[in-house]
Amino acid sequence: MIRLGMGALRHHGCGHLMCGTHAPADARAGSGTTPKSAGPVPRNLVEDLAAAARILAAEGVVDGFGHVSMRHPSAPDRYLMSRSVAPALQMPDDIIEYDLDSTPINANGRGSFLERFIHGEIYRKRPDVMSVVHSHSPSVIPYSLTGLPMRAMYHNAAFLAAGVPVFKVEEKFGPTNMLVSNNAMGVELASVLGNKHVALMRAHGSVACGPSLQVAVFRAVYTEVSARVQQAALAHGLPIAALSEAEGLLADETNMGAGMRAWELWRGQIKF
Amino acid sequence: MIRLGMGALRHHGCGHLMCGTHAPADARAGSGTTPKSAGPVPRNLVEDLAAAARILAAEGVVDGFGHVSMRHPSAPDRYLMSRSVAPALQMPDDIIEYDLDSTPINANGRGSFLERFIHGEIYRKRPDVMSVVHSHSPSVIPYSLTGLPMRAMYHNAAFLAAGVPVFKVEEKFGPTNMLVSNNAMGVELASVLGNKHVALMRAHGSVACGPSLQVAVFRAVYTEVSARVQQAALAHGLPIAALSEAEGLLADETNMGAGMRAWELWRGQIKF
Amino acid sequence: MIRLGMGALRHHGCGHLMCGTHAPADARAGSGTTPKSAGPVPRNLVEDLAAAARILAAEGVVDGFGHVSMRHPSAPDRYLMSRSVAPALQMPDDIIEYDLDSTPINANGRGSFLERFIHGEIYRKRPDVMSVVHSHSPSVIPYSLTGLPMRAMYHNAAFLAAGVPVFKVEEKFGPTNMLVSNNAMGVELASVLGNKHVALMRAHGSVACGPSLQVAVFRAVYTEVSARVQQAALAHGLPIAALSEAEGLLADETNMGAGMRAWELWRGQIKF
Amino acid sequence: MIRLGMGALRHHGCGHLMCGTHAPADARAGSGTTPKSAGPVPRNLVEDLAAAARILAAEGVVDGFGHVSMRHPSAPDRYLMSRSVAPALQMPDDIIEYDLDSTPINANGRGSFLERFIHGEIYRKRPDVMSVVHSHSPSVIPYSLTGLPMRAMYHNAAFLAAGVPVFKVEEKFGPTNMLVSNNAMGVELASVLGNKHVALMRAHGSVACGPSLQVAVFRAVYTEVSARVQQAALAHGLPIAALSEAEGLLADETNMGAGMRAWELWRGQIKF
Repeated sequence: MIRLGMGALRHHGCGHLMCGTHAPADARAGSGTTPKSAGPVPRNLVEDLAAAARILAAEGVVDGFGHVSMRHPSAPDRYLMSRSVAPALQMPDDIIEYDLDSTPINANGRGSFLERFIHGEIYRKRPDVMSVVHSHSPSVIPYSLTGLPMRAMYHNAAFLAAGVPVFKVEEKFGPTNMLVSNNAMGVELASVLGNKHVALMRAHGSVACGPSLQVAVFRAVYTEVSARVQQAALAHGLPIAALSEAEGLLADETNMGAGMRAWELWRGQIKF
Repeated sequence: MIRLGMGALRHHGCGHLMCGTHAPADARAGSGTTPKSAGPVPRNLVEDLAAAARILAAEGVVDGFGHVSMRHPSAPDRYLMSRSVAPALQMPDDIIEYDLDSTPINANGRGSFLERFIHGEIYRKRPDVMSVVHSHSPSVIPYSLTGLPMRAMYHNAAFLAAGVPVFKVEEKFGPTNMLVSNNAMGVELASVLGNKHVALMRAHGSVACGPSLQVAVFRAVYTEVSARVQQAALAHGLPIAALSEAEGLLADETNMGAGMRAWELWRGQIKF
Repeated sequence: MIRLGMGALRHHGCGHLMCGTHAPADARAGSGTTPKSAGPVPRNLVEDLAAAARILAAEGVVDGFGHVSMRHPSAPDRYLMSRSVAPALQMPDDIIEYDLDSTPINANGRGSFLERFIHGEIYRKRPDVMSVVHSHSPSVIPYSLTGLPMRAMYHNAAFLAAGVPVFKVEEKFGPTNMLVSNNAMGVELASVLGNKHVALMRAHGSVACGPSLQVAVFRAVYTEVSARVQQAALAHGLPIAALSEAEGLLADETNMGAGMRAWELWRGQIKF
Repeated sequence: MIRLGMGALRHHGCGHLMCGTHAPADARAGSGTTPKSAGPVPRNLVEDLAAAARILAAEGVVDGFGHVSMRHPSAPDRYLMSRSVAPALQMPDDIIEYDLDSTPINANGRGSFLERFIHGEIYRKRPDVMSVVHSHSPSVIPYSLTGLPMRAMYHNAAFLAAGVPVFKVEEKFGPTNMLVSNNAMGVELASVLGNKHVALMRAHGSVACGPSLQVAVFRAVYTEVSARVQQAALAHGLPIAALSEAEGLLADETNMGAGMRAWELWRGQIKF
């Protein structure tokens, strides 16, 4: 059993220590090994990313914690995510570029999220994923605790019909602070996620991912709604006629387009 | 078993393919077969219809999805509904006229809701219905999944005492994307609805209808509230003394008038 | 079994018919039998009464429906209540004076609530009651449907420890529209209430009363909160150590004073 | 069995009677025995304390009732808490200094909370505690009624993994108004709390404490959230894989730092 307490693990490949709330900003600065930036990102994409965090807060998917990232539009080995700040407060200028080791490229003194390794390792394992949301939405956590399988309660949650695996951090890492705070843990989480769209994390939260920022946000929101619907349906004490896998595939395809109607609504409410 | 995937079904009578998020705007434009408009609608009615969508959003009955329509006040074979846009964003100028085949008359480039066939076929089958709401309110969906009968928990939900049938799309159409995306499916839904005021749609949502826009909105709202009350009452593990059918008829008659008090409240909060 | 449909019952003592949404305004006007007003009421009390309705709306106890009244400060045989309008819209000028038969004294064309008889008959039977709230708060209705006894879940709901009877309108009046729409029904409700502070009405809602407007509002709010707490506690499947009757009496006495802290908060948020 | 009704108990050491809603302001004024102030407190700390009350209201942990205090930054035998006013209304100038007997030092006519003895006695018993929150958050009360043990449902609620004892006021004090309205009751509550971070109070509410104002507020908020998550998880009817005590210790340590991200969000929303 490997004990992963705070400040106990070396970041693989760069040697700095993870400790405290925020990882040291731009850890390799001055060491001459900081990777080069993949180049500037169109302003509207950066604004959409910061807006996505605020949308997730407005929809009750995140509170003071949680984060959303997107893969760099022109560099598949890079991703973009805010510095460590509450989602509802994120601004376009908070966005940092990371490599897939989750090393910040241009932190310039800004702190990084402790759990950024969730994002880096999912992008590494899943070339189809362009955006990842990590949240602790209260309606979803119960399923991570009991192992009751989440199912797709309606067409908007179609992406759940593929199955929702549960990452149990203690199985490989023993007692921890529950956070995915290094790449080894991120690798394991990405492995449990497999080719699904959502994975739960025991006594912690969940990740949702998708082929675009808009779809990942949509999935994070409707994972939460579907969890609530399932909770109510359970109380009926009757079989639940959830979406079949075939229905899930068909409805998910429709949602890829129709989901933009929700994004249009949500995005219009965020001004910077 | 008929497979109704995306882009697989011809729209009866016009030959265009259903695909993507929005149906092609004004599908018959240029073919010379677009039906003529039944004439202009008083501005205050159009504003009330757009306001109804925003009311449903404010009351939590719809989110980014769902729609409300009204029959054309002077042409029973036409109905009015917004272009495909989130309910909370609807404006009077978004309203489109449709015939009962749900062919847009005056789309002028505006996209139509994929599920407009729900509305057209209910208006066709039910001359008494002047307005239809389609929603996916989270408290109602569980009943569509388990088949537990919804009942009228209090006088405001009196219209439920007549019974609430469940449309199971898969029975006739096999695995689909769950949407009522053509007239054949609309016919089937309208048939399941029969002479009731509300029908559930398995793993999808519900429809509520009434003799006026105001009553349809009222019923959509109190279907949601009654669903929540029933959910709580279930947990008592005791028989539930819901409204009898006789009580339902009497109370529903009162609601036709008294319900305007709620409309007055809701409508006053919407400004264009 | 007496059938009490709409427009079927004569108002005892004045001969007009109850029908439609609003009772005819000032029914005896012109007949020479309208009682005289007990005199003007201080403006601040009238404002507090209208504010109380808005507070109940803000706290989720009422929606478009429900009402609050107070006994006339200088005439025990009169009470004050708004014309028929949604609680959140009530203004001081909406307040009408009623006698205990619930005949409006100064309606001047303003419509009255159909269920004003709840108020008149409670004031008649209970000289200690100075204010009455009638609501359909969703967390309370389940107890009216199942008969599961409401209990006082914490000190703020101490007034429930005396017991919460359920008025079942059908026992005396057969199938109705569920509303207390005449004095005979009001008498029966007041009789079921007895000397308690709150009574439930089957498949309808509840009444809360108190020795002041502030206390009645406090009780209406915490009846709703306590109902929610009990609902959750039930799910634990263990005995619930609610307030004993002795604890209820002691805590209720404290609340009479301490409750003003809540009123101060709520009242300060209402401006006319 | 000791009867602790209103106005029945002498305040130990000063001889005044507890009665009415607010304790007499500055009880020893004029008697020459009022303790001396420990000196002024930096304005930013006083503002943070008033803001903490408003944060707890905004987060739904308190309504018109409940309070938060902090130990005096330079005098361990003193604490600071608002005069008796609803949390959402607290202003920096409402803050009063108390000694550990909960005697106000500088009330100057301002009323004190009836239950301030909760705070004084916890500060006396627990030198490590720098801040205390007392609330009646509705999701937590059920556990106080049934004795079902609260557990840490996710990392944010790690502090619950140490265990959550229940204070049953009636065991030592018989039937009361449920309030901790004197030092003897405060002593008993502090004794039940022991070395834990949160204690429940039967049919009343809870206390949360921490090594800083920020941590106490964080714990009060996530006690409420965790209670809701546990309520939902219970309904799954399966074992709940809550945080182990070891995981709780590790995660709580992380929260001490990371929790500031939530405080930053919450605090930024309060302006005086």
